[in-house]
Amino acid sequence: MAKSSSDTAAPKRGRPGYDREQVLAVAVKVFNEHGYDATSVADLSATLGLTKSALYHHFESKSAILERALNDALDALEAVVDDATAQHSLASDRLRAIVRGAVRVLTEKLPSVTLLLRVRGNGDVETSALVRRRAFDQRLAAVVAEAQKEGLIRDDVDAAVASRLIFGMINSVVEWYRPGGPVDPEELGEDILRVSLDGLQPRRA
Amino acid sequence: MAKSSSDTAAPKRGRPGYDREQVLAVAVKVFNEHGYDATSVADLSATLGLTKSALYHHFESKSAILERALNDALDALEAVVDDATAQHSLASDRLRAIVRGAVRVLTEKLPSVTLLLRVRGNGDVETSALVRRRAFDQRLAAVVAEAQKEGLIRDDVDAAVASRLIFGMINSVVEWYRPGGPVDPEELGEDILRVSLDGLQPRRA
Repeated sequence: MAKSSSDTAAPKRGRPGYDREQVLAVAVKVFNEHGYDATSVADLSATLGLTKSALYHHFESKSAILERALNDALDALEAVVDDATAQHSLASDRLRAIVRGAVRVLTEKLPSVTLLLRVRGNGDVETSALVRRRAFDQRLAAVVAEAQKEGLIRDDVDAAVASRLIFGMINSVVEWYRPGGPVDPEELGEDILRVSLDGLQPRRA
Repeated sequence: MAKSSSDTAAPKRGRPGYDREQVLAVAVKVFNEHGYDATSVADLSATLGLTKSALYHHFESKSAILERALNDALDALEAVVDDATAQHSLASDRLRAIVRGAVRVLTEKLPSVTLLLRVRGNGDVETSALVRRRAFDQRLAAVVAEAQKEGLIRDDVDAAVASRLIFGMINSVVEWYRPGGPVDPEELGEDILRVSLDGLQPRRA
């Protein structure tokens, strides 16, 4: 990997007094920019301006950092589905709550969700994350299938494909959404609901 | 990167008589599985069962392989927009043709489009590809904005956001579509058109 560029450089203040969360945030940023496999512990410690042993004080290994980041993203996404399940008995209402909640998690935890969405399954940590992600995707597909039975989702589109398209649209947000940019995250959630349920075409009365 | 696993191993027949296209196909598969940066020329030659010099006979460098794959994907995607522009004067018709055509290119050239969508801009080849991709995205956004003026796209969703959501949905297909699987690529294009324009909710008469 190339030497750390200015935009990945850690803020000078507080150095070397990073806490665990700050180390995590910088590491995830570097992983997203250069790829996890292409990033060495030496790259991370250079970017952070920490010695390797200071870095190991916070995390025992590079894969421990990855594991923590992926679990953060998965915990937050699973909580969205758990909450929606607890709060709504109709699948159609659960689906709406999940779409809004998933967009909120993506925009709030953009770096760790970006990392999660790029996981390919190399190594144990990535494999475990993929297993959790597949289980999560199956829960989503089940809600979409149930919402289709309730009549919220048209029956001429396969429920599994519909689920992949809705959440594909949501996941694509990590590719372009930038916190503090012109797009309001709340409004984005409503736009995605509107586009996925009502479509982009104006409905004629 | 880990040693080549059995599923990336090149077919034994014909070895070492690979042609350039076969070398390209195997290399793109390895890049997608392990990441471009994490793949060395030694990894590629080991997976192909070729000596490095035999590999260099086909491509002068690892980045030449990447460049060729990214250009293949970009050429095909740009051709879709060029054709739609030549054939349809209404932006609404162009948009429909572009959605169908983009899904066709994604499913036909899945490996090289997957590689393109994961490019982060490390190095000259990736940077050039990102520049072309941004120009392509701007052409799409312009078609969506024009289709909105024609009344095809509802005016309560920002045209730039609408464009990102439609093509985000399309791009997400690379994450799960598998050639020869249960999902027909033509039908998928129609589903994406239906979902993005009409929405998933049944229209009440």
